[in-house]
Amino acid sequence: MYMQNPVFIPGPTNMPEILRKAADMPTLDHRSPLFGQILRPALAGVKKILKTEAASVYVFPSTGTGGWETAITNTLSPGDRVLAARYGMFSQRWIDMCQRHGLKVDIIEAAWGGGAPAARYEEILAADTAHEIKAVLVTHNETATGVKSDIAAVRRAIDAARHPALLFVDGVSSIASMDFRMDEWLVDIAVTGSQKGFMLPAGLAITAFSPKALAAVETAKLPRTFFDIGDMARSYANNAYPYTPAVGLLNGLKLSTELLLAEGLENVFARHRRIASGIRAAVRAWGLELCAMSEDLYSDTVSAIRTPEGFDATSIVAHAAKTYDVAFGVGLGEVAGKVFRVGHLGSLTDVMALSGIATAEMVMVDLGLDIKLGSGVAAAQDYYRDGRTSKVRAAA
Amino acid sequence: MYMQNPVFIPGPTNMPEILRKAADMPTLDHRSPLFGQILRPALAGVKKILKTEAASVYVFPSTGTGGWETAITNTLSPGDRVLAARYGMFSQRWIDMCQRHGLKVDIIEAAWGGGAPAARYEEILAADTAHEIKAVLVTHNETATGVKSDIAAVRRAIDAARHPALLFVDGVSSIASMDFRMDEWLVDIAVTGSQKGFMLPAGLAITAFSPKALAAVETAKLPRTFFDIGDMARSYANNAYPYTPAVGLLNGLKLSTELLLAEGLENVFARHRRIASGIRAAVRAWGLELCAMSEDLYSDTVSAIRTPEGFDATSIVAHAAKTYDVAFGVGLGEVAGKVFRVGHLGSLTDVMALSGIATAEMVMVDLGLDIKLGSGVAAAQDYYRDGRTSKVRAAA
Amino acid sequence: MYMQNPVFIPGPTNMPEILRKAADMPTLDHRSPLFGQILRPALAGVKKILKTEAASVYVFPSTGTGGWETAITNTLSPGDRVLAARYGMFSQRWIDMCQRHGLKVDIIEAAWGGGAPAARYEEILAADTAHEIKAVLVTHNETATGVKSDIAAVRRAIDAARHPALLFVDGVSSIASMDFRMDEWLVDIAVTGSQKGFMLPAGLAITAFSPKALAAVETAKLPRTFFDIGDMARSYANNAYPYTPAVGLLNGLKLSTELLLAEGLENVFARHRRIASGIRAAVRAWGLELCAMSEDLYSDTVSAIRTPEGFDATSIVAHAAKTYDVAFGVGLGEVAGKVFRVGHLGSLTDVMALSGIATAEMVMVDLGLDIKLGSGVAAAQDYYRDGRTSKVRAAA
Amino acid sequence: MYMQNPVFIPGPTNMPEILRKAADMPTLDHRSPLFGQILRPALAGVKKILKTEAASVYVFPSTGTGGWETAITNTLSPGDRVLAARYGMFSQRWIDMCQRHGLKVDIIEAAWGGGAPAARYEEILAADTAHEIKAVLVTHNETATGVKSDIAAVRRAIDAARHPALLFVDGVSSIASMDFRMDEWLVDIAVTGSQKGFMLPAGLAITAFSPKALAAVETAKLPRTFFDIGDMARSYANNAYPYTPAVGLLNGLKLSTELLLAEGLENVFARHRRIASGIRAAVRAWGLELCAMSEDLYSDTVSAIRTPEGFDATSIVAHAAKTYDVAFGVGLGEVAGKVFRVGHLGSLTDVMALSGIATAEMVMVDLGLDIKLGSGVAAAQDYYRDGRTSKVRAAA
Repeated sequence: MYMQNPVFIPGPTNMPEILRKAADMPTLDHRSPLFGQILRPALAGVKKILKTEAASVYVFPSTGTGGWETAITNTLSPGDRVLAARYGMFSQRWIDMCQRHGLKVDIIEAAWGGGAPAARYEEILAADTAHEIKAVLVTHNETATGVKSDIAAVRRAIDAARHPALLFVDGVSSIASMDFRMDEWLVDIAVTGSQKGFMLPAGLAITAFSPKALAAVETAKLPRTFFDIGDMARSYANNAYPYTPAVGLLNGLKLSTELLLAEGLENVFARHRRIASGIRAAVRAWGLELCAMSEDLYSDTVSAIRTPEGFDATSIVAHAAKTYDVAFGVGLGEVAGKVFRVGHLGSLTDVMALSGIATAEMVMVDLGLDIKLGSGVAAAQDYYRDGRTSKVRAAA
Repeated sequence: MYMQNPVFIPGPTNMPEILRKAADMPTLDHRSPLFGQILRPALAGVKKILKTEAASVYVFPSTGTGGWETAITNTLSPGDRVLAARYGMFSQRWIDMCQRHGLKVDIIEAAWGGGAPAARYEEILAADTAHEIKAVLVTHNETATGVKSDIAAVRRAIDAARHPALLFVDGVSSIASMDFRMDEWLVDIAVTGSQKGFMLPAGLAITAFSPKALAAVETAKLPRTFFDIGDMARSYANNAYPYTPAVGLLNGLKLSTELLLAEGLENVFARHRRIASGIRAAVRAWGLELCAMSEDLYSDTVSAIRTPEGFDATSIVAHAAKTYDVAFGVGLGEVAGKVFRVGHLGSLTDVMALSGIATAEMVMVDLGLDIKLGSGVAAAQDYYRDGRTSKVRAAA
Repeated sequence: MYMQNPVFIPGPTNMPEILRKAADMPTLDHRSPLFGQILRPALAGVKKILKTEAASVYVFPSTGTGGWETAITNTLSPGDRVLAARYGMFSQRWIDMCQRHGLKVDIIEAAWGGGAPAARYEEILAADTAHEIKAVLVTHNETATGVKSDIAAVRRAIDAARHPALLFVDGVSSIASMDFRMDEWLVDIAVTGSQKGFMLPAGLAITAFSPKALAAVETAKLPRTFFDIGDMARSYANNAYPYTPAVGLLNGLKLSTELLLAEGLENVFARHRRIASGIRAAVRAWGLELCAMSEDLYSDTVSAIRTPEGFDATSIVAHAAKTYDVAFGVGLGEVAGKVFRVGHLGSLTDVMALSGIATAEMVMVDLGLDIKLGSGVAAAQDYYRDGRTSKVRAAA
Repeated sequence: MYMQNPVFIPGPTNMPEILRKAADMPTLDHRSPLFGQILRPALAGVKKILKTEAASVYVFPSTGTGGWETAITNTLSPGDRVLAARYGMFSQRWIDMCQRHGLKVDIIEAAWGGGAPAARYEEILAADTAHEIKAVLVTHNETATGVKSDIAAVRRAIDAARHPALLFVDGVSSIASMDFRMDEWLVDIAVTGSQKGFMLPAGLAITAFSPKALAAVETAKLPRTFFDIGDMARSYANNAYPYTPAVGLLNGLKLSTELLLAEGLENVFARHRRIASGIRAAVRAWGLELCAMSEDLYSDTVSAIRTPEGFDATSIVAHAAKTYDVAFGVGLGEVAGKVFRVGHLGSLTDVMALSGIATAEMVMVDLGLDIKLGSGVAAAQDYYRDGRTSKVRAAA
């Protein structure tokens, strides 16, 4: 009744009050020097979270989808070939965008529940001896299936094929929650948004371009104005924007990066992993399976949970919302009706996670699934609780 | 880390965002007509929640303790006798206040875990044929023991003794969460605060005086200025205050009463009962007992849970705060170390309650108690869940 | 020191606290039915403010610039001709965008300080007997020069030339502050943002498409994905978005339209006119002139004030910010250094306007201009004050 | 319409957004260690602002009036004599409170518009050779008349009379805005509230007791519970409260002291003096006079302005509120109808002050007073503006 339950959608996430207060700013003149005091540290903070020193960060008043468009329109030209794998709704949407922008997409069809097929990337790139493929697109964390792909492996595939293509990575639901190493993996463009790991309201597309990506901008012919990083870069040089910036959200981004870095990135990742592991323990206790096909693919930010054959997984989400005022995510695309999704990224505690697990149990029992009340909660509690951790430590 | 877990203390409660925003007002001139547009409906709303038409409401920038002082200083004189029972920390504190203000208190010692002993009240009042006892004090809901007393029974005791004493009721942790019938029970002064059933920050003492209580004000000699209801009444007549009011909190009180009345008082009480019943089911599943001695005494706003002999109940509260960032209440006074308390009043959902139960389980297991993880959660889920309710309804 | 002074930039405007609180929402699942309860009335409210029944409204997480891009990419194809006049920085930027997107722009060069030259539009359209020109672009209110153009006159020009071109109007700094009649003027696409007349933070591009504009979408070949109104329309049909919406801002937009409509659109326009008139009275009292060349061109949302020959108008803005913590707008483009701008749109009162005028006076005197302290204030006071209005009324 | 104009009442003041956000806290368990992290620095900060090392600070969920009651009930006994001067509504109210609490008050009648008459204090104290007078009460800044009294002079008077009476000072509208030297002046009890110089919402009574005052507590017999500093001190020793604290306001108080100390107390005082001087310049320009009888009495936090004989000063306040939505203060008590008051304390800028002056001018002209529009504004502008300061500096 009062919007007090946590949400368990895979973004926008629960928001820390302190970030909401930072984003809820009174009007500040974005042409005054004060704006630079927000913009500069926000950009610098994003770089640290991306683990990059080489890249340049550009933030648009938009969303992750706008970030995808920024990536392709600033570096490619009509008719250019790009290589992408389709293994979930979000990789599919980026492919669709490329096609609508007049690019030719070499699509690798892959299982929904599997990750980016590095070997197939290598094969195709190796075959492209004319180097017609200009960019390789990878979705780091498929929000639709709860699958994390191995970006380092894709990089190795490109290198093994000795191919000069750019590497574009959609990190919308991974960055700031799971490890992302832009420089080490030689990612050329990274894309994310404000409403996931950064724990802010939606409204910012956050992109980073490597020097190699910036070089490609020179020859790119796809039309762009709103998403033009050249305009953005020229304005940044004066601590300004080419149009009206979302000052409050940028102020929130500044503080978000400060909070994340103060906590320590590895601690942030470990926290996501711990909470996710508890939820996965609950899924096992329920006798259900994840959409993600193997343990190395498990996402630490979202779990897509398969329901039994013949059961409409979407009814779980509808019932939870209506009866318990709790938001889960539905299955999308090929897995619509087959999975429901639990988002566990951003600002979440073990305690909040337990309430999501407990709710899912009630819902599934209400809807006639053969689930034992408390079973998933107990499994997660066992994972989360302090004593167990200590005992494990003592045993180690 | 970000203050996101619900609190499970018996007040201040979790606050709905909409009430926080109402209380967080910019400065409004409290001498302007706008102030009356806040004050009037706030006072009228409180009357409806107290189920009184006859009483006059006075709200002070203070707390429930200030409300107690308002009650006694406006109606009594030094040396006056009052009758009170001691069955918990809060009944004890009101007695102590009376003594410090020069009143003679006839104290009925009663069990901590029992309620107000109506029969004993009647006995003593009947014996007071000279009618020296000016007021009878009762704590409606003992926050320290999780015990709800039967105010109607106390009223019947006074009437049976044909005694003219005033009836003062501390409803700090009951009003707006549990049924309170000021007119029907002929309560002369009711006292509460903003931070419990009204779901606001602490900072308001809310009192209501019956016409009989107002008559007693005429002859009362205890000194009072800040808490003088005469000054307050005269100022209210001009939609003003005798000093600077807490405008934002009053605005919050106005909206709080609107929300509660829109939900329907009986629905509000049923909601508290439902959530409390789920928690009590968890306690039974754990094999533990409530401090409250019998079912009719169970409070719907706070449960004091006895831990096994020899176990320090306070360690539960400390461990929960430190390890899981969740606040429970410690035992106070006679039951210190013997109970821990779960507050379940104000703005709470079944889902939030489950996270409190789950946390308590982890804590108790961490500390070596023989509790089965998930057991209390399952019992509460079974109580809360929709399917069960439907089935029960179908069976009825 | 505490960001308490009003801003006098031509947007983002001062924001009413109630709108900030509406926009500062906790996370709501944008795939739940609750989202439709925000989206539907927001879209309906915008239609009323545009005075349209025929048009369809599409709102993007972007800014006015994104709205321009939405207009052209959804209705035009590479190589299409459009007709536009350049008479300020914002008309120039839209022209530039068209060119960057591969459109051929017939540019009418007009004076900065003048309005859209309807007669020239008619001439050119009449000459275009092949109807190659697909769209006519007009900036309703040139924020750079404080000039309001006559859209009805442009419509008449198109009609007089019997030309089928679409009419696109940039109403970023006019809509919701000055009269805008989409249906009456047969505007085909209107563009605005959240941060001007709607008094919200920046972050929404608000567009409306006439049925004729929607028909043009069918054949438009410019690439678009993020700004695709087809995707948007299909999602709206399910009360959803094609990607993550800015839920808080949409909730603010809903309330903003409610507030504006409750005040009454004509009252809103009259309020802007009254405040602007006071500021123009001050300018006259100072012996200065507006950039706008004639009275019929005066904008009610922003005044660009010419400073004496040889004086750097930009120094006013810098000095005001540094010394008095007050934000004015600098001159842009051709009038850079020649004007400074006072924004007087959105949430502003006569009283706040007077503080802006008083500050401008101090700044100009500090910088050596021959201005009499209090002179502009007195002129504006005379305009604003109640007695004068009454006397005028009495005389009428 | 949207509560955007500054208020010009002598408290509650305009509040910096950052303090409102600090006070608007989610629920924190006040029995957890986190509470001490708020309480300790808040108390320490208050001490620095009072310029005391010796005193102990006690903060109650109440208002300044509660602070007065705290002062007298903790140190005095029924029938005790106190000495006080009456020269305004607030000194009168404190006297009235003493009488209602059974104290005998030696009242010095003094002019409303004059300050505390140190010579008369000395005379009376010297005559009290039996040392029956237990306390001397002084109102540092009479909010009703805009008069600042010389506390050091009163201290010298007490010392000259070699009298052991305690010195109680009401600093409600001076502390944190004007210099207050608790240790140097040997003030025994200082009283203030949250809603003036601390720029917070009303709701805290802030008191400080010298060691000598604490010694008097031992023998004081006036009844007290809510305002008992002994309970408070015992609780503070455990970083706790004797009842539910106003946690959010205390968090605001912590930050308020940090902001004030970061700005530098002498800078805070100079800022108040500068803004007040500008307003006084306006009053002179209008040809009006202050209620304060001489320049050394001028308050830097509130100006009471005398209107011409036969004019109802209260109509200014009513008209300003109704017509311009601006709040000024009415005259109280003896000066009701003769003065209107402009509060200029707390969070205010020169720019905001100018809007108050401009509004007062419009109001006075509307009501027929012979005031020249812009005259007061010009005088204040001349005082505030940067150039003048520089020139003065250059000349010095």
